Amino acid sequence: MTKRPAIMEQVLAALTRLPGVGPKSAERMLFALLKQPRERLRAFARALEQLPDAVVRCSRCGTIDGQSPCSLCSDRRRDQGLLCIVAEATDIRAIEKTGQFHGLYHVLQGLLNPIEGVTPDQLSVPALLRRLSGGKEHVREIILALNPNVEGETTSLYLRKALKRFPVRVSKLARGLPLGGELEYADEITLGDAILGRRDLP
Amino acid sequence: MTKRPAIMEQVLAALTRLPGVGPKSAERMLFALLKQPRERLRAFARALEQLPDAVVRCSRCGTIDGQSPCSLCSDRRRDQGLLCIVAEATDIRAIEKTGQFHGLYHVLQGLLNPIEGVTPDQLSVPALLRRLSGGKEHVREIILALNPNVEGETTSLYLRKALKRFPVRVSKLARGLPLGGELEYADEITLGDAILGRRDLP
Repeated sequence: MTKRPAIMEQVLAALTRLPGVGPKSAERMLFALLKQPRERLRAFARALEQLPDAVVRCSRCGTIDGQSPCSLCSDRRRDQGLLCIVAEATDIRAIEKTGQFHGLYHVLQGLLNPIEGVTPDQLSVPALLRRLSGGKEHVREIILALNPNVEGETTSLYLRKALKRFPVRVSKLARGLPLGGELEYADEITLGDAILGRRDLP
Repeated sequence: MTKRPAIMEQVLAALTRLPGVGPKSAERMLFALLKQPRERLRAFARALEQLPDAVVRCSRCGTIDGQSPCSLCSDRRRDQGLLCIVAEATDIRAIEKTGQFHGLYHVLQGLLNPIEGVTPDQLSVPALLRRLSGGKEHVREIILALNPNVEGETTSLYLRKALKRFPVRVSKLARGLPLGGELEYADEITLGDAILGRRDLP
């Protein structure tokens, strides 16, 4: 079989590293990129190069934004007593889209996974506890909005225990999400219902 | 909803332009890119920027390669009398992988589509006819390896007629591919069988 130019292989390798992209879809993408006007490809390359400098992780909630604290944490109109805990920054957009939540967020940066050795210290659990014990924030309710799978349930249980010493109500999303599904791909109605029907943990 | 930094929106827009990428997968990809080491992201951006200069369309067969004529067209060990016609350059790799074809290629750059107004002149049909009538190439057989769908069948019929005036055998891939499927995603065995079982057109 013919060997392709090194640059093509480099772009293919980079595309294959993206989530959900295998060798065949990477090849399709490569040829689609080659069909684009050169100026558009250059703009894409430049945006990619500038990306790390244009964004910053919010020092408070851990999401990715153009500023720190992020625009959500800086928005005083949002309910400062309501805190929604999500696994990844991508989950925030899904929840925002429901229009059912107007509080603040905390991004765990993953979920507990004892088998793969993911412990609370590798997530932003220490930062969460600091937020609650620092005295600057006055959180009255925490909503655990984690994926309804083994890792999500494990993490919810762990957090429920860890949060016992704070005078906060802790709830989690109603089981409106199908078990084994992914929060990020839930439709807005289902996810909205799940927020409204959140249940207190005993 | 919070507004994201412009650079993030630019990268999202560029990702969404790729085939098979919707708004949600683009967002997943964006966050995956942000998790990569900065140096790797920079290498990706640089490879993208250099891509158009590193590749060239082969003046003979129309594929994308680092040189023109491409490495396939320049390979004198390949059967110079056998010509395989494909819709897209991505289809070549699928056929090469079967190991059942050792001739040359011609990339149509698409398929006829009367409804969307895609005519033979917008494809590389004129270049194909020039290859056959130029006297430089001595093609004895042409294999039409087009997608087994409406556009592919239309194009095969059209080419069968257009090639009548040349003293070449014209065959097409055996109907081993499932109707409505995509050539590029066929497994190697099925595609290989289809090459071996190609049928002469009456």
